Amino acid sequence: MPERVVVIGADAAGMSAAHQALREGRRRGRAVDVVVVERTQDTSYSACGLPYWVAGDVADDATLVARTAEQHRAAGIDLRMATVATAIDLDQRVVTVRPAADSGLAGPAQDGTETDLGFDSLVLATGARPKTPPWALTSDGSWVPGVRAVKTLDDGRAWLSLLDGQGSGAVRTNRAIRKAVVVGGGYIGIEMAEAFVRRGLSTTLVTIREVMGTLEPELGRLIHAGLEAAGVEVVCSGKADGLDVGDDGWVTGVRAGSRVIPGDVVALGLGAEPATELAAAAGLPLGAAGGLLPDPRQEVAPGVWGAGDCCESIARIGGYRIFVPLGTHANKQGRVAGTNLAGGNAVFEGVLGTAITRFVAGGQHIEIARTGPTLAQAQDADTGLGAEVVSLLTQSTTASGYMPQAHPIAVLVLADRATRRLLGVQLVGGPGTGKRIDTAASALWCQASVDDVAAMDLSYAPPFSPVWDPVQIACRRMADSLGR
Amino acid sequence: MPERVVVIGADAAGMSAAHQALREGRRRGRAVDVVVVERTQDTSYSACGLPYWVAGDVADDATLVARTAEQHRAAGIDLRMATVATAIDLDQRVVTVRPAADSGLAGPAQDGTETDLGFDSLVLATGARPKTPPWALTSDGSWVPGVRAVKTLDDGRAWLSLLDGQGSGAVRTNRAIRKAVVVGGGYIGIEMAEAFVRRGLSTTLVTIREVMGTLEPELGRLIHAGLEAAGVEVVCSGKADGLDVGDDGWVTGVRAGSRVIPGDVVALGLGAEPATELAAAAGLPLGAAGGLLPDPRQEVAPGVWGAGDCCESIARIGGYRIFVPLGTHANKQGRVAGTNLAGGNAVFEGVLGTAITRFVAGGQHIEIARTGPTLAQAQDADTGLGAEVVSLLTQSTTASGYMPQAHPIAVLVLADRATRRLLGVQLVGGPGTGKRIDTAASALWCQASVDDVAAMDLSYAPPFSPVWDPVQIACRRMADSLGR
Repeated sequence: MPERVVVIGADAAGMSAAHQALREGRRRGRAVDVVVVERTQDTSYSACGLPYWVAGDVADDATLVARTAEQHRAAGIDLRMATVATAIDLDQRVVTVRPAADSGLAGPAQDGTETDLGFDSLVLATGARPKTPPWALTSDGSWVPGVRAVKTLDDGRAWLSLLDGQGSGAVRTNRAIRKAVVVGGGYIGIEMAEAFVRRGLSTTLVTIREVMGTLEPELGRLIHAGLEAAGVEVVCSGKADGLDVGDDGWVTGVRAGSRVIPGDVVALGLGAEPATELAAAAGLPLGAAGGLLPDPRQEVAPGVWGAGDCCESIARIGGYRIFVPLGTHANKQGRVAGTNLAGGNAVFEGVLGTAITRFVAGGQHIEIARTGPTLAQAQDADTGLGAEVVSLLTQSTTASGYMPQAHPIAVLVLADRATRRLLGVQLVGGPGTGKRIDTAASALWCQASVDDVAAMDLSYAPPFSPVWDPVQIACRRMADSLGR
Repeated sequence: MPERVVVIGADAAGMSAAHQALREGRRRGRAVDVVVVERTQDTSYSACGLPYWVAGDVADDATLVARTAEQHRAAGIDLRMATVATAIDLDQRVVTVRPAADSGLAGPAQDGTETDLGFDSLVLATGARPKTPPWALTSDGSWVPGVRAVKTLDDGRAWLSLLDGQGSGAVRTNRAIRKAVVVGGGYIGIEMAEAFVRRGLSTTLVTIREVMGTLEPELGRLIHAGLEAAGVEVVCSGKADGLDVGDDGWVTGVRAGSRVIPGDVVALGLGAEPATELAAAAGLPLGAAGGLLPDPRQEVAPGVWGAGDCCESIARIGGYRIFVPLGTHANKQGRVAGTNLAGGNAVFEGVLGTAITRFVAGGQHIEIARTGPTLAQAQDADTGLGAEVVSLLTQSTTASGYMPQAHPIAVLVLADRATRRLLGVQLVGGPGTGKRIDTAASALWCQASVDDVAAMDLSYAPPFSPVWDPVQIACRRMADSLGR
């Protein structure tokens, strides 16, 4: 009898694990059956593409789907959509499932009957959900009309409906949507601000501290200034703590302390948290961020594997646990889990915290990227780094100064004073800035020193770079500042 | 008495050495006098910017000058322009100099009298000159009117004059320039083709083999197709071997075998060769490419240093000698020489052969980049690599497929089958392609394997990259193809 793999969750991590399990099984001549259960009706979609769908870059929801359920099934995966896993029995090796209440699917299980799925291997790929403050929800747990997070394809569909003034939930309307409020100054916040400005909405961004709190404040201030230059009102030191709502229940504003910021729609970008209730109920241990704690082979218990946004990862620099929900890690961790459960031996080698985004609207073009720990993380004794960290900001241009492609770029370098090791790089600048972070990520991955980066043979031609690439200039200046 | 440093050549390498010698001297409390002699009247200019000056991106020649003679002098350097070094006596530690015949400078040495400059340290930074076939020159050694290389600021000035139809050398004209021929399919050739197409000229590019012979032919063919799509006529397998010239002496066409390609102007992009006659006459050894052979500290003889395009470098992968005239290496080698001659201890850590260019004209946008040895270099036993090299071409997109920023990108990966080490990467694709080479260059520099690159935490957001960066996809596919 073939061994059965059950995967819970059919997005990047789960489906990478499913396909990789089949591939590795074939390679090893092991008969592997893979069953995937997915609560929603969507699979393998790009959550990161949602702001661009809202902005108008993406034609429709189908465009954001990398592989359809039919395509997964054609590859030999028993994919069961609109199917909720309700319990895991690790001793009996059984997952209990039932049709989703709102699945709308015809079929024998439509009465909500629970059934048991036995497994030899289990992959938990239950993902993350957006952090949602209580005030964003009505008493029945649905979104306050006009308010929404940006995580699922359903969120995307709802946003297009909201912005068309068509309604939300039970509230139908045909109001004109003129003013948007974004709560949260991180990646989703910046991207939704771009989407709103590009749609012509008057936009306010509310954030507790400086925007992009995962970068050092001097870089956050550059982004802040760019947002304002694009016409975005930025309210820092404003913790959103409630809503004003009209007679019809539609949001009219966001309260932040004593202030009310008027808005016809409100996008929540407050981060995500691992969806691990099922795993916790099964007795699996969770970390400080609430995520599963897989070993480097992505195993969380014998024969039980975790992958993607429901997991905490290991920071490659420092070795501490860190929660970084991102499709790149989900894909890699899924591959690692799928390889290992079918008898292979793969390792997930950790995260640097590399991230990139942009704000391109209102006449501004700002690219934002980072890799490695922040200054605070690097200085935190708990991270295992505990180093004397030196930080240096260097201003340069993205191309030779005399070329039309030359735009300002700010490069912040973090290094360890004693070992001269590169610890992190953060970038904010014009077109051509963002992807330069991969030069640094590649160097960080290989444990390079700032001297190594200063010596590297990086590419130069006038439309692409000054003679010394900005990342290299910054590392050379850091090397000089550390003495010899 | 301060020690005297004499530098021959006032472009990137020479001036980097000069400034660094002063800095290092100050750091060490050593009194250092630096004299720089420069044959021309130009210093520290961007030769790489010349095609963009011709294309119209750059306002004037002054814009291409990174630092003027006055700025160098203000930093404490005794910079003598229009001064030719005519001989070096290594035993007597003396350089003989005289004013350049065409210097036009007033002053006591205007009569051409030779004088001797004693030195404690000597830096040879005499650069390279464009390879010039005899048929491109008239009997008196000047350019055939309408024909020119692209190397010096004077070349740039001449090009603007040629394209305005104003003349060349002794030939004054006011002809309409409609048709350009580019001889050579390398970096300068591609860049001048861009410049000519952008100026509205009918353009033919003549090359012996496929265009961009420093990339594998499958990538060259992609560039070839793009050039043709932009309206450039590409004549491969055509070795230019002569000119047709009108009654007034102005070029009318380029002969390639039995064929004549009509042209009103002809740009030569046939590569460069080290300008090392002076060094050779002084008895310094030269390599196979005719360049100086500095050690890793850039020393070519006791107290004599070489830097920049007059030198052969060491390939970081393989350790063989290679001639790569490029501003990035010139700057670094100059710094190394300047540090060491003033008592420091720096090392030039070699070249990967990283290079980048583009062709953006005629509705096409092609970015081109490479790093590491070519397949032929990697397979050549003489390079010290002698490996079983595997090559794999991967097609991907520069951004998530559903985004307007998604353009095709071709990634060729070279790896060593036995060690799985990454050996080289070559890229051809649309906007966003070129600077990705630095991810690979950084990995190569650190001796990463293709597995390392496949595991890296590179940046992802839909406008910038697919979930797996194209360089990473290509390395992952290579890793898969090598088995486990």
